[in-house]
Parts: sequence; structure tokens; C-alpha cells
Amino acid sequence: MQYQDVVELAKRRGIFWPSFEIYNGLSGFYDYGPVGALIKDNIINTWKYIFVELEQMALIDSPNINPEEVLDASGHTKVFTDYITYCERCGEAYRADELIKKKMPDYEFTTYDDMVKKIEELGIKCEKCGGNLSRPEKFNLMLSTKIGPGKGKTSYLRPETAQGIFINFLPYLRYFREKLPFGVVQVGKGFRNEISPRQSLLRLREFNMAEAEVFFDPEYLEWKGFFQDMMDQRVRLLTNRGEDVELRLGDALKKGIIKQQPIAYFIGLTFRFLKNIGIDTERIRFRQHHPEELAHYSKDCWDCEVETSNGWIEVTGIADRNQYDLKQHIEHSGADLYILKKLETPKNIKVKRFKGNEEKLKSIFGNEWERAKKYLESLEVTNNQIIFQGKRIPEDAYSIIEYDEKEEYTKEIPWVIEPSFGIDRILLSLLEHSLYTRENTGYKVLRLKPHISPYKVAVFPLMPKDGLDKEARDIERILRTENFNVYYDESGSIGKRYARADEIGIPYCVTIDYQTLKDGTVTLRERDTTQQERLGKDELPEKLRRLILKCLTSI
Amino acid sequence: MQYQDVVELAKRRGIFWPSFEIYNGLSGFYDYGPVGALIKDNIINTWKYIFVELEQMALIDSPNINPEEVLDASGHTKVFTDYITYCERCGEAYRADELIKKKMPDYEFTTYDDMVKKIEELGIKCEKCGGNLSRPEKFNLMLSTKIGPGKGKTSYLRPETAQGIFINFLPYLRYFREKLPFGVVQVGKGFRNEISPRQSLLRLREFNMAEAEVFFDPEYLEWKGFFQDMMDQRVRLLTNRGEDVELRLGDALKKGIIKQQPIAYFIGLTFRFLKNIGIDTERIRFRQHHPEELAHYSKDCWDCEVETSNGWIEVTGIADRNQYDLKQHIEHSGADLYILKKLETPKNIKVKRFKGNEEKLKSIFGNEWERAKKYLESLEVTNNQIIFQGKRIPEDAYSIIEYDEKEEYTKEIPWVIEPSFGIDRILLSLLEHSLYTRENTGYKVLRLKPHISPYKVAVFPLMPKDGLDKEARDIERILRTENFNVYYDESGSIGKRYARADEIGIPYCVTIDYQTLKDGTVTLRERDTTQQERLGKDELPEKLRRLILKCLTSI
Repeated sequence: MQYQDVVELAKRRGIFWPSFEIYNGLSGFYDYGPVGALIKDNIINTWKYIFVELEQMALIDSPNINPEEVLDASGHTKVFTDYITYCERCGEAYRADELIKKKMPDYEFTTYDDMVKKIEELGIKCEKCGGNLSRPEKFNLMLSTKIGPGKGKTSYLRPETAQGIFINFLPYLRYFREKLPFGVVQVGKGFRNEISPRQSLLRLREFNMAEAEVFFDPEYLEWKGFFQDMMDQRVRLLTNRGEDVELRLGDALKKGIIKQQPIAYFIGLTFRFLKNIGIDTERIRFRQHHPEELAHYSKDCWDCEVETSNGWIEVTGIADRNQYDLKQHIEHSGADLYILKKLETPKNIKVKRFKGNEEKLKSIFGNEWERAKKYLESLEVTNNQIIFQGKRIPEDAYSIIEYDEKEEYTKEIPWVIEPSFGIDRILLSLLEHSLYTRENTGYKVLRLKPHISPYKVAVFPLMPKDGLDKEARDIERILRTENFNVYYDESGSIGKRYARADEIGIPYCVTIDYQTLKDGTVTLRERDTTQQERLGKDELPEKLRRLILKCLTSI
Repeated sequence: MQYQDVVELAKRRGIFWPSFEIYNGLSGFYDYGPVGALIKDNIINTWKYIFVELEQMALIDSPNINPEEVLDASGHTKVFTDYITYCERCGEAYRADELIKKKMPDYEFTTYDDMVKKIEELGIKCEKCGGNLSRPEKFNLMLSTKIGPGKGKTSYLRPETAQGIFINFLPYLRYFREKLPFGVVQVGKGFRNEISPRQSLLRLREFNMAEAEVFFDPEYLEWKGFFQDMMDQRVRLLTNRGEDVELRLGDALKKGIIKQQPIAYFIGLTFRFLKNIGIDTERIRFRQHHPEELAHYSKDCWDCEVETSNGWIEVTGIADRNQYDLKQHIEHSGADLYILKKLETPKNIKVKRFKGNEEKLKSIFGNEWERAKKYLESLEVTNNQIIFQGKRIPEDAYSIIEYDEKEEYTKEIPWVIEPSFGIDRILLSLLEHSLYTRENTGYKVLRLKPHISPYKVAVFPLMPKDGLDKEARDIERILRTENFNVYYDESGSIGKRYARADEIGIPYCVTIDYQTLKDGTVTLRERDTTQQERLGKDELPEKLRRLILKCLTSI
């Protein structure tokens, strides 16, 4: 099935559609309708089942709005940019690299000058009016706002949920009783002021993400997760050396293709999650970043890509974030985002420490002087320049003191590996992989697994008369009370009703007929096989519960 | 228990804490930690169980960011304001009405002049430095941002989730097969740039809300919901005539105290929801708005208030929104947000209609001329001024045409009743109502119901040795696979472990002892009674599942 079939179905049956349509829309924003919001919830709940219940990571929820200090530290205010170019005649804006890619699909950004040269060489003009394009400039993708009265405090809508986890490393460390490794996860919105949003859920300005930040002792980079057989999982890998191979994760790690054990584990976990919700495993691959794509601090990074009619699209990133983020937040906030490691034998050592001069620090840092002092006094004594919040601490702002100490602990910045999931893209791919046409009827069917399906069961009276409707309503009511989301339908032929239910992926249909009134039995029809069985209505709740639970827990 | 006990527990055990603490915080923002995020999820899931599964409302998800057209139409850009006053010496900002209320608790805003007079009469000065205060000015509480490249499009973070529902009335009407009444619900973030956020979760700038917009044919204002006995529900009502009475909802409606049946129903539903999650029913009341508190279009509005150590706090509003919002969006967008009602006998009528002049409309409305024309031609012919998007359509921009028509339908704007829930306040109240001190131990216990509890069961090996820990790990693993969120603990005495589990509300603790190794039985201890029973480990999953399901579905 193609993207266009999915978009048509999505609009017609209430899965998703462009937001604000009565006001001409606003590109990059989509609504999830009554069917789509339930599917999205179920995908997220399955993700939480795997990451929170099985892998025992801590679920948290931090604000969408972040003050600028957080994003200054993370580097987003400086480097979270794309190059933008405007038409000098009509003012239309374009992402420079995308214009080039349209004419030169292999293009990868290397230098600014090369980009400018490519635009010239390829003779790229405004797509709307043919006008000349301006020199590309950096465009920050964060959305900003001001918090509080008066001028307000500059803040941003978070571009990722990760920073809300890093800055609270200490409470999470306490929660896990000071033991590494541990994972902290968050599911929520992210925001990027994309220059050119496109293809509905594929590139949104407001999107749903699920991220895990997993903290390790740098000396023990290993995740002993729930799945003891994970290293036996076979996956398709596109390595940065150009190979396209299917390998056991354990072998890929042994051969040095995957650099770190947790990355191998989370590649496997991503594969099993996608398989569990219903993504076609033949259309999943993991693509390793090329060395030049990697952030300077990162040793290895893999994208999970899923094949759709729009090509291979990235749905998950599994990245080595190294000690970078915590290091940045230590430097910007002065907080002790370290782990303490007990030494086997305490050492007697001479300690040299900076001792900050209150008056001098006040004159440089104003209200922030206490943080500056704390930061300064936490440092090893060196001859390097000491920078706090972008300002140098001059030598006359501290003295150096010396004393004896028994060193029992050494402190270290934890190492972070991050699997990050784009929920909207996963949902879009899942719809494409799930939609098919039933051969004998020509009707469309959405092959959603029972735990992902928006409604768990449809209830139909054979006819809306002779007490069949009342009996059906009673059964519907019992199922609702038992915590099933039920779809009731009494209009049109049973065939039409099956077709309507199939199209939004309802896995089971229960029909109440004249025999039900006599012996209390109903028919239960399974969507994909269309096979029916007859069973007592009292058996329904337990039967359905077992079927759905089995589907969720088969990983 | 008091607010301070809850805040202390919340911070210590990972329920919630102020956000961005390593950067000095940002007032009005809170993080939910590993325990709190799970409790919040469970409250929301229970709400969805009631509103989506039982009441069959449609769950949807629309963007946090709304373009200004939406909030111009709803009136928020104009009237969503508080009065702010600044200290003329130190610049500190205050909410004017709150300053007055501190000295005059009964104060209610009537007029601007009265407010200014009160500040003078009461001699109110800056609380920080004693300086004089500026004349109060209106301060809009919405947070704004700019979307897209270049100057960007002015947009706002939504102050409520409701508008995202109203503007999509037509797809929802289609989803419900053109039949009223129906409800559409949304759970998500709301944002208000509060002048003075306070008391942790009580007044946040970014908060969690769950709203239902229920659409009615104005002639049939009745919600025949899941609970057929709802009118027999007794609740405590504080009427706007000053009575404080406990009444059957049916009687309150009959006496004209509650004005509309759906409001009575949703008051009952709110009561049952709060009771189900564990709010003390003795500390729930519903307060009717005084006529002067009501929006001009609203006939009736009730706040659900819960008593806490901070006094009675509003946790839910049940409001008659009348036809106001849809009417505004019709006028601003030109969209047909109507229902069509078939007439019993079609009428032959002479129709008079406006016919817009394309050229003239273009000259007035530019790109928007087609909407203006559509709007104009949808109107009844009158002599009133015709306004579209704030601009008058002059008489030379249209002609009036007459023709015969068979009228089969009449169109009408649906009527909306809205129950709106503040999830953070509900969570805060629930914690206060649930926390108690166990008499014989002096330890704190959080009396959370099993379906609300962050972890469903704790698993303890009696000792972490002799194979007890391995057996406990196996049982833990089985429970996780069966979709229970499990808390494993092997450190300290069993008593200490019970205490740790009690404090975060875990309802059941399973202990693995030497007998387990012999006969496969374990002890199951219930939190509040501390009673223990012995049962086979294989019976655990079904036993726990039934206990939790029973708790969720007892409404």
C-alpha cells in the first residue's frame, strides 16, 4: 500500500489530518482523530511496557518549556540550525540542503562554501517564481517564548526531551540508590521550527517522541537487560564501511562493527519493539552513521530505518552521547552531576584546591557568584583558564590552598547511550505496513495487532430488532465495564459492518443472533482469517483479555 | 496530613519537584519523577476509562501550538488577562486581585476603578521593598511564539485544549455519523503565563488537563450516559443562593438549582471519578458560579472543589459553554460548524440570499475574499451590519437575489457542555488525602488504590541468599512479562522494605521465603490491613489482575 492510501484512509476514518484546516492550516501540525489518538496511545503504552516494565527504566515527565540556560548548556542555542535561503523576488524560504538534494540526491553537507558553490553550479532558483536565491544563512530551529511578567525570561520549546532528564541526573541517581547503570525515559512532545515541513507525519513542527537516556559507569559500558538472549537477535545492518549484512548482534559487536554493547542491545530492543507493534521485519534496517555525521563526542550512532513508499525513513536513533551533556551542564550550572566511586584502598593525599574570593567573584558574576565559587572549588587545580558561564575567572579571584586528605572516592561523569523514537513516523509506517486489500471483497483491511488496535472488539446485533439489539447492548456494556474499548454498530448488513471494522483494524467482531437469545452463545470473528467460532458470551471477557495480553507480551 | 508532608515526601521519593533546580529553577514548572509520572499516568488512564470506554467519547490529540486566528476567534487574545501591577521602585510584579485578597479575603473583582480604590484604601505597597505600586494594567496570560521562517506567524501555546476540539467539529460530527449528542475529549498540556505561580502543583505555568467537549442539539440537552442511576447520586452542592446542601442530582435538577441535565450528569461523573481514584468523598463539594462570575453566554457553571490543607481548591469545572465557541469560529473562519436537522415536512419557501461581488470583496479582504464570500452567502438576509474578520462588508459588495426553494433541513449551532479537569491539582489533593501515619510503626503510608499505585506489586526475597534471591527474580520476571509494574527490593529487613513500599503506595508485597523453595507458595501482604495470605506463586498474576481490575471498574 502507498502513502496516499494511508492519508486518504486517515482522513476518512479519523486517524489523522492537517490541523487548523478551517483557518487554512499551519504546515507541520497534525491532529490525531478518534481512531489515531487511540492507536498512538497503544503504541506508546507498548513502548512503556518494554522500557519501563521490562527494562525497569524510570518514567518521568519534565516541562515542554525550557529556560535558555538549559539549551545554552546543551549547545542547542548555537548549533541546532539548518541553512535557510530566501527568494530575493518573492520571499519564499527554502532549506538549502534540500534544494541541492532534489537535484543531487547523494549530497551531504561538508562546508558552507561548497554548499554555496553547489547552488550556483546546479543553477538552483526559487521553485515558485524562478527568482534568485539569497546567500544561505543559519536558522535556529527552536521555538522561543518569554516566561513571566515584564520583559519575561527567554525560554524555548524543547527540541528533544533528553535535556529534561540530564539536568535532573542527581535525583535519578538517588532514586536508583546510587547504582549504575540505570535508564530514565520520557514520552512527550518535541518542537522544531522546520523550514519546510512535509508529508504529514513525516516531518512535523510539533511531534511525539519517546526517549531513553541510559547512564553508565564509563568503565562498565554494559546493559544487562530483560532479554538475556538479545545478542542472538539477527538484524540487518548497513555499516559505515558500506556493507549491507544480516548479523547476530553478538557477532556485530565482536567484529567491532557495533562499537558498544548497550548500542547492540538497544538495536535489538528497537527491532523487537517494532516487530511487536506490527512493523514488517523485512523492512527494518539499522544504518550506521558515517564518521563525519557523528557529533564530535560520539563514538557510534545507528539510525533504525523502516522502508515505506516514501523510501527508507528514520524512525529511531540509537546514539552514544558519551559524557557530553552532563559535562556541559556541570560547566554551566556548577552542579555535581557525577557518580562517586569508592576506592578499594583509600589513599592519603595532599590536596590542592582553589579557594574563591567572595568579593572578586561578586564583582564578576553578580548574583551567580555562589555558583561560580562552588564550580571553581570543585575543580582540579590546573594552570588552564577557568571559564564559568562563558566568563573567565581571573587569577586574583582565588587563592590555592593545600591540605592532607584521605581520598576514599573518586568522581566520574557517567556515560550516556540514548535510544530515541519518533512516534509519529512509527505510526505512519505501521499504517502503511498494515493496510491491505482483502482479495474476495476488494475492501481495505488494517492488520493492526490486537494490543495496538483502537477498539478491541466490535459488537453487532444481527438485526437491530427482536431484542437482538438489547442483548447486544448488554454484552457491549459488560465488555466496557471490563475495560475493553468497544465499537458498537447496528447499521447496514453484517458484511458492511465487518468491512467498516476491518478498515480501522478492529481485531475481533462479536455478533449477537437469534441463537444468542436461546443459548447465550455468540460468534467471534477474527479479522485476518475471517474465521468464526461460537462461544458463550460469559467467556468473552477472559478470552479477549488473554488474546490481547498474549499479543502485547510476545516479544 | 498537610501540604508540607506531601511536598517533602514528593521530593524524597521521586513524585515531583521544581524543574530546572540546577539553574535556580523557573517558577511555575514542575517535574514528575519516576513515582509521580506513573501515578499521573494511572489517573489519566482511569479518566480515559470513564470518559472514553464507558461514556464513549472520542479521544483526540491536537497541537499545543495554535495560530492566532484560533485564539482571536475564541476571544483569548483579548480577554484572557489578569491585572498586573509593578513596584515603581524595585520592579517586582504582582497580580492586583491577589494583593487585595491577602488583606480582604472576600474580595471579588467588580470594576477597574473599584480595584484601584481598594489598593489605595488598603494601603497596599510592594511586598519586597515597600515601594509604591503602578496603576494595574491588563496582562495577557498566553505564551506566544513565532512559527516558520522569516518573521514567522504569531502563534500561542494553548491556554486550554478545548479550541483544538471546536475547530474540528465537522470531522467529529462525521465520525459520530451526524448524530448528536457526542463527546470529544483530549488530555494534554495547557500553558498560562501566570503572574505569580504558587504552591507547587497548585498553580503551574505548564499544566496537565483533561477536557471533554460535549455537543448537543440545543433542543435536546440531555446526556444519556453509561450510568443509568446517575440522577440518584447524592453530592454536596454550594449554590449561588448561598445554600450548602447534600442533594440527589435528580432533585437538584428538578428544583432548578442545577440548570441543565448534562451538567447534573457530569457533576455526578466527576464525583464518581474522584471517588474511584481515591479522593475522600467527605471533602468534595460542587460550587455554583455566581451570575456575575459566569461568562455572558453561560447559563450555569459549577466548580468541583476538594478540601486540602490549602483550603478548598478547584480541581474541575463543569461549564455551559452554550453555542459561543462554535459561533465565534463560524464568524471568524466562515466554516459551516452547524448540524443539519431534517424537517418533518419540507417547506416551499422563497429564499432571499446575499450574493457577494468578487471584485469588491477582493479589494477589501485580499486573499481572504473567498471565505468572506462564503460567510456572507451563508447568512440570513438582514439589515444589520455584516462583519467578517473584524471588517464591515459594505452594501455595494453584494446584491440580494431571490428564488424558490424546498427547505428540507434547518441548520443549527450545537450546544456545548464542558467538564474540564486539572490533573496536577487532582494528583496533589489525592496525595494529601492518601498519606497517613501507621500507628504502630510511625512510618508514613500512601493509601493509593491498586489501579493508581505506581507499582502494582513489590517482590522481596526474605534474604538475598540461599537461592531465595534467584527465586524472587524469577517471580519478578514472570510478573513483569504479565504486564505488572514490579518493584524489586532485597536490601534491609523485611520491615524496612514494607515501609519503603508503603510510602509510595504499593498495594501488595510478595515475599519469597524458605517455604517457597519447598512448595512454591509465597506470602501476599496487603498494604492497609497488613494482612498476609499464603498462595501458590502460579496464582499470583491472575489474583493480582483481578484485584486491580476490580478497583478500576468499581464506579
